[in-house]
Amino acid sequence: MSDYDVFLADCPARSTLELIADTWSVVVVFGLGRGPQRYSDLRDQIGGISNKMLTQTLRKLERNNLVKRRKLATAPTGVEYRLTELGHSLLGPVTVLARWAEEHAEDLAGDDGA
Amino acid sequence: MSDYDVFLADCPARSTLELIADTWSVVVVFGLGRGPQRYSDLRDQIGGISNKMLTQTLRKLERNNLVKRRKLATAPTGVEYRLTELGHSLLGPVTVLARWAEEHAEDLAGDDGA
Repeated sequence: MSDYDVFLADCPARSTLELIADTWSVVVVFGLGRGPQRYSDLRDQIGGISNKMLTQTLRKLERNNLVKRRKLATAPTGVEYRLTELGHSLLGPVTVLARWAEEHAEDLAGDDGA
Repeated sequence: MSDYDVFLADCPARSTLELIADTWSVVVVFGLGRGPQRYSDLRDQIGGISNKMLTQTLRKLERNNLVKRRKLATAPTGVEYRLTELGHSLLGPVTVLARWAEEHAEDLAGDDGA
């Protein structure tokens, strides 16, 4: 058991939840679960993500020790991203959430409340 | 297996993920996992949530068949919320995510990247 509690506004668990309970964070971590990927491959894989949003999401995940960035010694130079050990521990929860979305999309579709 | 894919921008799975990969949705569903609750009890339980945000989140969950609203025949009148069957099916994934946040808050804390 943890002393932290997502019900408390000023608890680190709440800010952690804010980081991970985010569509782009989930999709990026889920995508990197397939293995290390170049920035460009990740962008191509994730439909509808802008360069700005992908960069912001990766930086946020990197700052929080979930993703590791590595410059590739290739020409032209590239950058590769991979999950850290902590990132890998998040892969399970994120996969469960993404799978639920895929399996239950029809149960919610048709009323986006817009 | 589902035909839906969260990597596709225009897939219902993506819009479903956008609905559930949201801090307030997670905390509200997690809170209702303890059982049906009055609006006021839910608000008191969830630190830092405004009336506006709680109402918006509950309406969004209700429109998408995750939460059911019921007027109580009490004086003064009250409103009770409970998870639907679909909402209960989301409780597992949401609990796993919230528990991860509570267990790993210290691993990420100290660099909120603000």
